[in-house]
Amino acid sequence: MIQKILVANRGEIAVRIIRSARGLGIRTVLAASEADAESYAAQLADEVRIIGPAPASKSYLDVAAVLRAATESGCDAVHPGYGFLSENASFAKAATDSGLTWIGPPASAIELMGNKAQARQAAKKAGVPTLRGSDGPVTEGADALAIAAEVGYPLVVKASAGGGGRGIRLVTEEGDLESTISIARAEAQAAFGDPAVYLEQFVAKARHVEVQILGDGQRVIHIGDRDCSLQRRQQKIVEEAPAPGLPDHVRNTILQSSIDLGLQCGYEGLGTIEFLYDQDAEEAAFIEMNTRLQVEHPVTEMITGLDLVREQILVTRDKSLRLQQEDIRFSGHAFEFRINAEDADNGFMPSPGTLQRLDWPGGPGVRVDSGVVSGSVVAPFYDSLLAKLIVWDSSREEVIARSAHALREVHIEGVKTTLPLLKSLLEREEVLSAQHHSKFIESTPELLGALT
Amino acid sequence: MIQKILVANRGEIAVRIIRSARGLGIRTVLAASEADAESYAAQLADEVRIIGPAPASKSYLDVAAVLRAATESGCDAVHPGYGFLSENASFAKAATDSGLTWIGPPASAIELMGNKAQARQAAKKAGVPTLRGSDGPVTEGADALAIAAEVGYPLVVKASAGGGGRGIRLVTEEGDLESTISIARAEAQAAFGDPAVYLEQFVAKARHVEVQILGDGQRVIHIGDRDCSLQRRQQKIVEEAPAPGLPDHVRNTILQSSIDLGLQCGYEGLGTIEFLYDQDAEEAAFIEMNTRLQVEHPVTEMITGLDLVREQILVTRDKSLRLQQEDIRFSGHAFEFRINAEDADNGFMPSPGTLQRLDWPGGPGVRVDSGVVSGSVVAPFYDSLLAKLIVWDSSREEVIARSAHALREVHIEGVKTTLPLLKSLLEREEVLSAQHHSKFIESTPELLGALT
Repeated sequence: MIQKILVANRGEIAVRIIRSARGLGIRTVLAASEADAESYAAQLADEVRIIGPAPASKSYLDVAAVLRAATESGCDAVHPGYGFLSENASFAKAATDSGLTWIGPPASAIELMGNKAQARQAAKKAGVPTLRGSDGPVTEGADALAIAAEVGYPLVVKASAGGGGRGIRLVTEEGDLESTISIARAEAQAAFGDPAVYLEQFVAKARHVEVQILGDGQRVIHIGDRDCSLQRRQQKIVEEAPAPGLPDHVRNTILQSSIDLGLQCGYEGLGTIEFLYDQDAEEAAFIEMNTRLQVEHPVTEMITGLDLVREQILVTRDKSLRLQQEDIRFSGHAFEFRINAEDADNGFMPSPGTLQRLDWPGGPGVRVDSGVVSGSVVAPFYDSLLAKLIVWDSSREEVIARSAHALREVHIEGVKTTLPLLKSLLEREEVLSAQHHSKFIESTPELLGALT
Repeated sequence: MIQKILVANRGEIAVRIIRSARGLGIRTVLAASEADAESYAAQLADEVRIIGPAPASKSYLDVAAVLRAATESGCDAVHPGYGFLSENASFAKAATDSGLTWIGPPASAIELMGNKAQARQAAKKAGVPTLRGSDGPVTEGADALAIAAEVGYPLVVKASAGGGGRGIRLVTEEGDLESTISIARAEAQAAFGDPAVYLEQFVAKARHVEVQILGDGQRVIHIGDRDCSLQRRQQKIVEEAPAPGLPDHVRNTILQSSIDLGLQCGYEGLGTIEFLYDQDAEEAAFIEMNTRLQVEHPVTEMITGLDLVREQILVTRDKSLRLQQEDIRFSGHAFEFRINAEDADNGFMPSPGTLQRLDWPGGPGVRVDSGVVSGSVVAPFYDSLLAKLIVWDSSREEVIARSAHALREVHIEGVKTTLPLLKSLLEREEVLSAQHHSKFIESTPELLGALT
């Protein structure tokens, strides 16, 4: 039984988890920093436990403080959301050791997928297409040069402990390989406490596509695919489902591969397998697996009618999937727009402040997942995501029209936001015709110029 | 072609029409009263034409002023919404005569269904089950007494020109029949300019169910059923789709009857056929047909994924239904909650004011159709409907849980609203088990008492 969940997160995802929990009759305790004591999530939770001061290292990342909040408030489960401790295997283990139900995959799966070089090996073993690259970590020397020659230039040096776009360096010619490996190893040691790096083929103008899976340790089902290619500095800005313009054989390959990878590691709970899709070659290859709820999960909810957080809680509680693959029906097309409090005129710096006014659009197919309400204070300490506008319609063309108008109905006063960029994206022919790729925003200066 | 629509309405339905029109690339002109010159609908419309001062009789009901707004602004079509001129056959005819496309059924269908006695005859002719009653208007005298004896007491005397619950009087014994007919005829003459009344069987504890249809003059499809039994003084407060607890044979009968009635009158556009459902007898009978978009249309949209206003515009433009019956798929369950600016402590009197604060819920399955934003002024001149909260989930039980929490997330400051009544309704066992009926709210004083 799960009767009381510690929500070990903040902002819109804390609100999201509370909403699904209470729909199941489950009470929630929010572990909040001092800065978030009055947040909207804090208003919605049944109880609030203050776990420390604002810097995440002293509150949201403090394993002991979070676990204490859970046990002292009588919680029987922990939901980590995304970010913070959600992919920290030792936190998952500590929670389980404290007698708490961990709403996520076992620590072993988090650990396996947290090491990108090992994850790549697991994917290969499961028959998932991967990019050309080294079979494991490399160091400076002849072996690395030989592998690199087989992979071909340009290639990337990736930190094994990296992820989410961090710890990646491009090498365009052989002469730079060893020095880049040296620098990357030093950086990885400093950033992740692990110097291991590996080599991987570089794909220009790739699309970022991903598959949502859900498993119970015995069975794994897929819940369709998403495209998250509209990124700036590796951070997703706009996501959609289903992924547009994928040939059937590619879509079938990534869906089936994702199930195979999930089955191979006895996956439990929600997970996302990310792929690079090379539009020219019509080939997709594994990048990494995220062992948690994804920011962009609502686009999948909109085309399936599922409440993924509800399913995540239920599969954890029941240790058994209540859904069969054939229960998953897809209908229409959905977009998610991340509305960040950032100042585009100032290098997308965070724009903290008080929300003097906050009006959302409504009507058919329009959903808002917000972590703030009017009067909320946007603190400077955290990720700048204020809210997500999610829009559904029966076709991609229709949802783009509906989204363009919905974005124009958003009125936010008190902080600067990324709304101008989001509106500009929907006017670009590359986006309308799904010819965009993961470097599209950065390689299109007029998009960023539209913001000034 | 339809390129520019005059929106001859206000509030949430004007916003609703504008949203669907612009999704189709159609421009909108709002015909607004002076009091509504700064309304949210006015902010969203491409153009605003002021058609007169606040009282509806001098603006929204002024046929000449509305038509002038349409022609002077170069509109090629008129959408009347609901209420106001939407069921005024002479307005429909005048619009058509002015060369405008009328987004609704032909004036002849509006006229036929506007006369409740004739509508009843049309329903009988189409084989639609009707209540026992007179075959046409009655006056004081022996004929009426004889018909009444066959119908049985109690019965109701209804104004032919009434509708929407207006112009109805109950007669419990024979001795009162003739005097009630006299009073009802005088009232009908005063209220509707037509003294005709007819007799109809009275059904205690009936449910109000209705069927959405869409036709193009040749073909008619149904888009499922709704239950609108939660009413106060004949005004709907909460609606749901599909109608709960209907035996299959009753549901099949009302769906097929509605198509038959639509086919018989060559129906074009959206229409709703209303039935009384007698739970004890397991029988449904025709009450009336509404020849326009219905306030509660969003619950049907939520379980079908359709945009009914879009379909209404398209079938009018194309003179041809693009949907087949088998295209209509139903999924899950939806509720609509009407949030009115009314003071429950003061006999549900309108509560005008300025919206100091307005926070809506969000997350999966939650939709808001609002005519106001924060800062909007709620004027005392009109219907008190501020907004509709519409909630979907995969089952009735789940959507009730989701709705209860969503209602608690609504925060409105500046006017009093019906939110307390809406919340109380979802705590009633009769509502949870779908045992409620159309007199449930009025016959449950503690519900109204919960508001004090």
